Amino acid sequence: MGAVLLSEFATEIVVPVCAVIGIAFSLVQWLLVSRVKLNPEQHASGNSNKNGYSDYLIEEEEGLNDPSVVTKCADIQSAISEGATSFLFTEYQYVGIFMVAFAILIFLFLGSVEGFSSKSQPCTYDKEKTCKPALATAFFSTISFLLGAITSVLSGFLGMKIATYANARTTLEARKGVGKAFIVAFRSGAVMGFLLAANGLLVLFVAINLFKLYYGDDWEGLFEAITGYGLGGSSMALFGRVGGGIYTKAADVGADLVGKVERNIPEDDPRNPAVIADNVGDNVGDIAGMGSDLFGSYAESSCAALVVASISSFGINHEFTAMLYPLLISSVGILVCLITTLFATDLFEIKAVKEIEPALKKQLIISTVLMTVGIAIVTWVGVPSSFTIYNFGDQKVVKNWQLFLCVGVGLWAGLIIGFVTEYYTSNAYSPVQDVADSCRTGAATNVIFGLALGYKSVIIPIFAIAISIFVSFSFAAMYGIAVAALGMLSTIATGLAIDAYGPISDNAGGIAEMAGMSHHIRERTDALDAAGNTTAAIGKGFAIGSAALVSLALFGAFVSRAAISTVDVLTPKVFIGLIVGAMLPYWFSAMTMKSVGSAALKMVEEVRRQFNTIPGLMEGRAKPDYATCVKISTDASIKEMIPPGALVMLTPLIVGTFFGVETLAGVLAGALVSGVQIAISASNTGGAWDNAKKYIEAGASEHARTLGPKGSDPHKAAVIGDTVGDPLKDTSGPSLNILIKLMAVESLVFAPFFATHGGLLFKIF
Amino acid sequence: MGAVLLSEFATEIVVPVCAVIGIAFSLVQWLLVSRVKLNPEQHASGNSNKNGYSDYLIEEEEGLNDPSVVTKCADIQSAISEGATSFLFTEYQYVGIFMVAFAILIFLFLGSVEGFSSKSQPCTYDKEKTCKPALATAFFSTISFLLGAITSVLSGFLGMKIATYANARTTLEARKGVGKAFIVAFRSGAVMGFLLAANGLLVLFVAINLFKLYYGDDWEGLFEAITGYGLGGSSMALFGRVGGGIYTKAADVGADLVGKVERNIPEDDPRNPAVIADNVGDNVGDIAGMGSDLFGSYAESSCAALVVASISSFGINHEFTAMLYPLLISSVGILVCLITTLFATDLFEIKAVKEIEPALKKQLIISTVLMTVGIAIVTWVGVPSSFTIYNFGDQKVVKNWQLFLCVGVGLWAGLIIGFVTEYYTSNAYSPVQDVADSCRTGAATNVIFGLALGYKSVIIPIFAIAISIFVSFSFAAMYGIAVAALGMLSTIATGLAIDAYGPISDNAGGIAEMAGMSHHIRERTDALDAAGNTTAAIGKGFAIGSAALVSLALFGAFVSRAAISTVDVLTPKVFIGLIVGAMLPYWFSAMTMKSVGSAALKMVEEVRRQFNTIPGLMEGRAKPDYATCVKISTDASIKEMIPPGALVMLTPLIVGTFFGVETLAGVLAGALVSGVQIAISASNTGGAWDNAKKYIEAGASEHARTLGPKGSDPHKAAVIGDTVGDPLKDTSGPSLNILIKLMAVESLVFAPFFATHGGLLFKIF
Repeated sequence: MGAVLLSEFATEIVVPVCAVIGIAFSLVQWLLVSRVKLNPEQHASGNSNKNGYSDYLIEEEEGLNDPSVVTKCADIQSAISEGATSFLFTEYQYVGIFMVAFAILIFLFLGSVEGFSSKSQPCTYDKEKTCKPALATAFFSTISFLLGAITSVLSGFLGMKIATYANARTTLEARKGVGKAFIVAFRSGAVMGFLLAANGLLVLFVAINLFKLYYGDDWEGLFEAITGYGLGGSSMALFGRVGGGIYTKAADVGADLVGKVERNIPEDDPRNPAVIADNVGDNVGDIAGMGSDLFGSYAESSCAALVVASISSFGINHEFTAMLYPLLISSVGILVCLITTLFATDLFEIKAVKEIEPALKKQLIISTVLMTVGIAIVTWVGVPSSFTIYNFGDQKVVKNWQLFLCVGVGLWAGLIIGFVTEYYTSNAYSPVQDVADSCRTGAATNVIFGLALGYKSVIIPIFAIAISIFVSFSFAAMYGIAVAALGMLSTIATGLAIDAYGPISDNAGGIAEMAGMSHHIRERTDALDAAGNTTAAIGKGFAIGSAALVSLALFGAFVSRAAISTVDVLTPKVFIGLIVGAMLPYWFSAMTMKSVGSAALKMVEEVRRQFNTIPGLMEGRAKPDYATCVKISTDASIKEMIPPGALVMLTPLIVGTFFGVETLAGVLAGALVSGVQIAISASNTGGAWDNAKKYIEAGASEHARTLGPKGSDPHKAAVIGDTVGDPLKDTSGPSLNILIKLMAVESLVFAPFFATHGGLLFKIF
Repeated sequence: MGAVLLSEFATEIVVPVCAVIGIAFSLVQWLLVSRVKLNPEQHASGNSNKNGYSDYLIEEEEGLNDPSVVTKCADIQSAISEGATSFLFTEYQYVGIFMVAFAILIFLFLGSVEGFSSKSQPCTYDKEKTCKPALATAFFSTISFLLGAITSVLSGFLGMKIATYANARTTLEARKGVGKAFIVAFRSGAVMGFLLAANGLLVLFVAINLFKLYYGDDWEGLFEAITGYGLGGSSMALFGRVGGGIYTKAADVGADLVGKVERNIPEDDPRNPAVIADNVGDNVGDIAGMGSDLFGSYAESSCAALVVASISSFGINHEFTAMLYPLLISSVGILVCLITTLFATDLFEIKAVKEIEPALKKQLIISTVLMTVGIAIVTWVGVPSSFTIYNFGDQKVVKNWQLFLCVGVGLWAGLIIGFVTEYYTSNAYSPVQDVADSCRTGAATNVIFGLALGYKSVIIPIFAIAISIFVSFSFAAMYGIAVAALGMLSTIATGLAIDAYGPISDNAGGIAEMAGMSHHIRERTDALDAAGNTTAAIGKGFAIGSAALVSLALFGAFVSRAAISTVDVLTPKVFIGLIVGAMLPYWFSAMTMKSVGSAALKMVEEVRRQFNTIPGLMEGRAKPDYATCVKISTDASIKEMIPPGALVMLTPLIVGTFFGVETLAGVLAGALVSGVQIAISASNTGGAWDNAKKYIEAGASEHARTLGPKGSDPHKAAVIGDTVGDPLKDTSGPSLNILIKLMAVESLVFAPFFATHGGLLFKIF
């Protein structure tokens, strides 16, 4: 065993201070972004009184010093921002109802474990001690569920706000050069990344300290109640991802099918009635949805680690610093990401288009290398040199260097997944180029090659995940897995910054097009966007990889809490769970893809109707009716997010209640191992198709030029692939992370109930 | 316990007699088919001397009493037959080399278990008894491997022979009406179905009796050696399915992409250089491949049941009749299918197109109902009223009615899977019609809806499989699962007849087109073919469902043999196996789909080259160079079948040798639960796309006509979907059955080696 270098008092200081630094840093970034003015008068006066912005148009070659362009951009931005805000508010109304209903359900289910008795009871793992009543755990679980849900909603909403705040500013900066535009887009991403990471950490830290006031020395109950935080975060993420995903892709597919394919007008053309809905979608789906999703992963992996630690030597001996090791890792992560961000925004400068992708890749490498050092330090000062970890009934001895390896293997596995994803989705490498080449023989071969690419891209990430699992599992059982997941997520602020940068650039391009800016500006934003496509795929890779580890950790915690010692595949109860669980991702994907398809059909009909009935629309003399398209997307996504949401939320409850914990364990394992594969392949297939199309459009190489230009037969085939990929990469694929995590964390929260009252069907027969 | 009604002597008579009846019946069917003459002179003389064929052209409306048409059909048929034979011979050469090499491997691996000692040894399950040496098991396993391989090759080859013998005859009969053509096609399918079922049974029966001469009372060793039969059958099936699948789809996709999409000429147009290769492909892929596949399933489920029975009370008490219960079920199955066939060919007559699908569906229902009675009888006379079954270390008491339920639940689950598959792939129902409708908005929505349909079609079959597993597992452990699989396969003769009927009709249509027969004839063969598409999907459903049960049974037998008592998901060794196993179907599909894509690209280039360089080809004045296209398909499929084949064959060997039996158990479970889903969804997606296209082409309803006619934009979108579906439904999807079965049976055969020498990597570290 041995003492910990960092005192309890120091821990109580370090964690909140790091969180506050993160928030402060994000505010500074926001301030820097806000210095790009969207008000032409203000800008003009600023220009005259030389307030530091006198260089505004020095590099401007276009001579577009026209205040009307700025006004136009500001108008479009506010239209997008209003659309996004109004959608999110509508979504949150429905989700709010669900949240309250589910909170009541949690309270009733968990309260019923001991028949709503308010008497203290023997502890679950150490029957000789007395723990707080189940009713208290029910109450505090409900509170932490609500806290998680609110933090998740807040993360998504703030992300959306900053993204819509930044997109027109990126467009305007693009007039001055690609480097300036990059910095605005990246800073805005960083605002979101740091706000989310710091908020998530701070709320969790405060909740633990407040709950401790009641729980005192009953850490088992305390951290069991804290798992509600993960459940809350993830269930909001589910609706955010699914609802936002359907919204964005219905609009995108609908806009593309009529605009690009039928009418042959460019993407983001202001004549397209669905164009505003499309841009709104980027913000509610890719930004708000992704934010909630990664926050969910972060909250869950922290909770999984904490709940396992609470029944290990840290919890039993009340070693507070070691107990908060997961939070210490995240704290250091914020500092590391802060330094990493400076490399992109201040220490180096982007001068040419070809430097963008390497700059973003460098972010990943720098943060990983620095974080490795960070983890070593935290593990050295925050953990005793030897301790024991609960391992399905036994206590397993773990050395601190073994724990360091667990976190490290997760961190580096994340980097490998990121690089593999980049290889399969960036058009700088042969896989995407092969897919583009297959467009020569039409859309069918493009689809076949794209699907094959997605399947193939699964191989290395799965090996990376398998190795991380093996190492961390062998060293420190389920705690090892949980901290490996935390390791992968420790650089979340940088990951999110890179990720959010993509949709911001995408929107910036849209605004340039709609404001009628020159094609030079559009080329710059397109270059930013192409890099963004790859980083978005990398972000999804991280999200999926971490989801796999997180849900395994939660699964382990669930099994421990449900008091089953083995999950034997060779029992009928477990095996049927396994095979049905492996089916769930397909069921879920069928629902979400069909939803996107149906919503897109409605959108196509509306867009066609407007082109056919509004005279002068095609010639640009009349304005389309954007609002109807926004409404179609909103209504469709709200209506369609309910069945897949219900599938995910109800499955653990139904299986646990009627079939019991063994079958539920099978379902979780099946959904995990099958869902990870579909999620990775769907997101990479979609990313590859998107970039194959961009490869043909950009025509940067000899080979690409033989396939182009825009409007050629291969390009048309590429557009079809891109459209098929949209729901795969932005709706069904990324939602699957949440499916596997959410079912696991829900099972963990309800484990006390299932262990007591579950398996009704088998009890009856 | 209790005595068995059927004596050992009676069993020794009943089984071979049933097999011989099956073979005789198939010869009679063949004789009936052969009475349709392909020789015009002979036919003319036959017509004059009234030899019973005077009605030949009575119903003929076309006035095509032109001997030159008959000659043309005969010529095309012989071209197809020659192409198929030459491909299969080439394939078998390569496969033969593999077979010999793998036979040596089996002998060496299994012989090394006891260091090639020829001394008797204590039995594995009952250490007090003495069993034959491991060297003997190595030798006999090798022999039964070769027997299985040869039977499998024979099954595929004979099926191909009768199919190519029947296709032109079906075309000629179509001149007399759809009913006559149906009977020829169906009878030919029956020839294949009965030959295969009866051969498989007879060879297995003879092998058991011959091996018994050496093994005597050591039934444990005897039936362990017999499992090689399943491995042999399945490994040939792998190459048949993969090689044939790549062949047929490279030709099909290549022919369609240039012919239908670019040149706008009909399917099977003789001007298309790839048309012969396409027709050859139907025979080597859908007939020979499917035949080998289902033979493999049959052999494996029998072996799995036998090996479990040998260590249960049947084997321990040497109850021969009860021991051969699996073979008795298959024997009765042949008789039941024989009666069922008469319903289609003799008792009822097809008069109109719309009666075809119901007639085929009735076959399924009749055979299932009759077989239920058959199973009841066999279970009553062949099994004691109570007995014990080996269940991972224990002996579990089973009643005979429980065993009846195990077989029955498998049989009826097969029927349910068949019906669900029909619902999702026939254009008589809304799912396919919705997919067709989505073609209105282009190929992208068609692909999205088709993928969603495939995902959705997984749900009910998985529940059906899960329920069968739960029931049979609970009643009779792994033996229950094995006999449930046998139940599903007990009507294999009818299933294969229905299945083979499809490609025969497809070819008949091709021959009609190529021989320049009138569009009336083509409409009739098209109607036969559309029904065949659905039955092909049903056949694949059966193949996948039974594969799931079979591989679970084999998996259970492997675990028993490898002496591990639990496969606990919550150990790192098992979990990494599970997640990597779940990835394998993706890796495999990536390989096979990419292979089809690349081979199709080559085919497209060749077809385009011929259209561009052969003057007068498009106008029908010059003949295309069919042989080059046949060669491209042959070379591509031989070359491309090796990597996926190696993946499947080497994985169990590598994992078992280096990581040991626990990880291998995880890999098998993961591949099983993940592979089943992809296989079902791929085959149904492909079937649905094909029939959505046919739905638009046929224009049978008001709705269908709004989407058509041929060449309209929705039809073009439907053709793209159909082309994407080709490799999914005919190459990667059905090959996945074999992947999961083959890895399981291979693990079982090598289990003694892995149990002794496996897990090197963990032993070193």
